Amino acid sequence: MSLMNHQFRLAARPIGLPKRSDWSLSEEPVPAPGEGEIVVQVHYISLDPAMRGWMNEGKSYIAPVGLGEVMRAGAAGQVVASRNPAFPVGSFVTGGFGVQEYAVSDGKGMLKVDPGLAPLPVYLGLLGMPGMTAYFGLLEIGRPRPGDTVVVSGAAGAVGTVVGQIAKLKGCTVIGIAGGRDKCDWIVKELGFDAAIDYKSEDVKKALRSRAPQGISIYFDNVGGDILDDALANLARGARVVICGAISQYNSTGAIKGPSNYLSLLVNRASMTGMVVFDYADRYAAAAREMAGWMAAGQLKARTEVVEGFDKFPETLLMLFRGENTGKLGLKVGGE
Amino acid sequence: MSLMNHQFRLAARPIGLPKRSDWSLSEEPVPAPGEGEIVVQVHYISLDPAMRGWMNEGKSYIAPVGLGEVMRAGAAGQVVASRNPAFPVGSFVTGGFGVQEYAVSDGKGMLKVDPGLAPLPVYLGLLGMPGMTAYFGLLEIGRPRPGDTVVVSGAAGAVGTVVGQIAKLKGCTVIGIAGGRDKCDWIVKELGFDAAIDYKSEDVKKALRSRAPQGISIYFDNVGGDILDDALANLARGARVVICGAISQYNSTGAIKGPSNYLSLLVNRASMTGMVVFDYADRYAAAAREMAGWMAAGQLKARTEVVEGFDKFPETLLMLFRGENTGKLGLKVGGE
Repeated sequence: MSLMNHQFRLAARPIGLPKRSDWSLSEEPVPAPGEGEIVVQVHYISLDPAMRGWMNEGKSYIAPVGLGEVMRAGAAGQVVASRNPAFPVGSFVTGGFGVQEYAVSDGKGMLKVDPGLAPLPVYLGLLGMPGMTAYFGLLEIGRPRPGDTVVVSGAAGAVGTVVGQIAKLKGCTVIGIAGGRDKCDWIVKELGFDAAIDYKSEDVKKALRSRAPQGISIYFDNVGGDILDDALANLARGARVVICGAISQYNSTGAIKGPSNYLSLLVNRASMTGMVVFDYADRYAAAAREMAGWMAAGQLKARTEVVEGFDKFPETLLMLFRGENTGKLGLKVGGE
Repeated sequence: MSLMNHQFRLAARPIGLPKRSDWSLSEEPVPAPGEGEIVVQVHYISLDPAMRGWMNEGKSYIAPVGLGEVMRAGAAGQVVASRNPAFPVGSFVTGGFGVQEYAVSDGKGMLKVDPGLAPLPVYLGLLGMPGMTAYFGLLEIGRPRPGDTVVVSGAAGAVGTVVGQIAKLKGCTVIGIAGGRDKCDWIVKELGFDAAIDYKSEDVKKALRSRAPQGISIYFDNVGGDILDDALANLARGARVVICGAISQYNSTGAIKGPSNYLSLLVNRASMTGMVVFDYADRYAAAAREMAGWMAAGQLKARTEVVEGFDKFPETLLMLFRGENTGKLGLKVGGE
């Protein structure tokens, strides 16, 4: 009896928040690997805000997922069949395996990982795409200097937690913006942020003025919308704004909200720069080594929130847009 | 009988376009110069879009003009009384003399100019603040390389005309956005721009797509609003957006229109950077020498539109916001 694979495929381009009917669940036998190929059993699927953008039609930094195609996703798993000597059976790997239980791959873009060094989901978070995004976005675009005031939105998320901790390592004062008291307490007490602002209960613009009276040197933006405007209203001279994402806008059914306070860039001789992590692919390995060192020294903490059950993918993805996860969100699909 | 001075003072903070009643016209005797001071008879007053911002309350890159104060303005004129040996009677000078017929100055921030080398109004335009803004904004923030596609809005204005011409000198393809067929024809035929887009009769977004099919390398923005969004929609990878001004928004009575397409910065790994010309003050002289050389070689053309009559100041200022001037707008006040 052959192994069966289940897959979430994009059935319709969502309007607003993705609905269950925007997905189709398919079942098909897991193919045998061809020459040079391997079969991976997926253990964890990475859930990332960027996935929402991949579901839209039109040109972006990456081609959209086609209708009827398996949804694109990063994932971690174990090789269960191999005709590729670089990835023997039993190897643990990460790669763009998609939202499915088994993936066939020729090994391109795959990485071998060691679950003895860090739990598998950490390779999707701190040591994966979100961690790389934080590392290169902050260090290359933000260019932190000791004494800088760094503000990060989505501060309790997969990227924001890492941005704030690296900024602390670089000698900066770090303020995180997150939703709810629990997340705010956690980033200060557990991650060592200097301060937190709860956007659900505080006036962010006023809170930034009082907690960053000298102005913001680096604003790392994961959310867009009003919070981006509040940060722009509080820039220091020569500030760098890193545009990493805009989760508040991804499910907007109207026009994207542009930052009304963008002329603060002029007043403060500041810059706002977009980044896409893929541009740094040739430096991922070195960055992961440095971050693993920080983790080993207890200077960088990873947190993963895992939901179990392949069929829970559609609802679990929505947790990101409802701000329900703390740290990296993953879906447990198979394995131990 | 003592010489009388007339002055336009800010009487009220304008809402929307400045009205005549936002000004008060005052008359007072021209004081005698104190030790180290000079008296300048103003010949030309510079009219600049930035003046609108100086009339608003609140923190900006420069303090607002106070209610009851003489309106701030750059100007050019001749020394008519002097107790400062650096500026003998008869010298031609530029400085921040304000909207008045005579100014008393201690010489700080003043420059001696030679009307034999260039007409006096040119020292307020190409060789003055607008020219410096174009020079440093394009070269320092835009960083043009041969083959780049440079787009400038407000292309027939004091700054835009210089941006486009310097970009041509640097080997770029230059597209200007201006209002009306006459301005568009003029920047192409007289100034050597490669193409022009008439925002009053064309769909700017589509026109940019067809005239800059490879995308915009540098967008130099003087206008903000919808045109900024149209440019953002057409950026090339790694584009630099220079935020110099936003004349379309200066008289807005509602919220400033933020650029809805700002996520194009992310998709294209592009940057948007604000600039204030005053930051380059220690390099003005060298820039002016280089630009004077280009003028002498016929590679850089200045155009000035002069309105005569001190009392026409309030209406003449509005020409800027109605797009009625071509090139540098000046008010002729005194002198020959």
